[in-house]
Amino acid sequence: MSLTFKVIPKTQYTILHFELGDQPLEPMALSSLAPPVELLDRRRLGLVFSGRGPVWLYAWLTHWAHPFAWVATYDPRLDGAVVLSRHVPDAPEVGQVIQMPPTEASE
Amino acid sequence: MSLTFKVIPKTQYTILHFELGDQPLEPMALSSLAPPVELLDRRRLGLVFSGRGPVWLYAWLTHWAHPFAWVATYDPRLDGAVVLSRHVPDAPEVGQVIQMPPTEASE
Repeated sequence: MSLTFKVIPKTQYTILHFELGDQPLEPMALSSLAPPVELLDRRRLGLVFSGRGPVWLYAWLTHWAHPFAWVATYDPRLDGAVVLSRHVPDAPEVGQVIQMPPTEASE
Repeated sequence: MSLTFKVIPKTQYTILHFELGDQPLEPMALSSLAPPVELLDRRRLGLVFSGRGPVWLYAWLTHWAHPFAWVATYDPRLDGAVVLSRHVPDAPEVGQVIQMPPTEASE
């Protein structure tokens, strides 16, 4: 598998950082991707995706994360993660940018 | 609103193409985005997103499109759209690339 996940726990959310390997990621890899769901608290905490990858990988991850309390994707141009879904009352608003420096989003 | 949608009907799917306006799209725009759902057949047809935009816009669209029969995102580097979700038996497989030239994806 040419994709590895790293789980970075924070107080209000978990960062799921991914890194592509030496081989280019083929679209068919989506059919067998398995993010480490057992390390994530999907009912209570937000989930922030970060990493350099194609739009279709982010789209697949977003679909996969549909049941999570809330979901955001990190954008290095904004120095933060944009909230795109929320299912719990105390989640940040959709469109809100959770500020985090690049180092926090990957380490 | 600095984002416009264009609906391009095909036999097996509908392309929802977006174009950003002169103003940069702010993340908070997500809170009021309204794709033309009334023009889309979400139970039967696939939905293909295309357009130049940030990852968080594609992620929001993917979340929005969760109930659709199947969803794919166009990638100009692949000359096609990558299937990322499927909810009906006759949908293409996740990871499959639906070949389409760039002109088809936007016109």
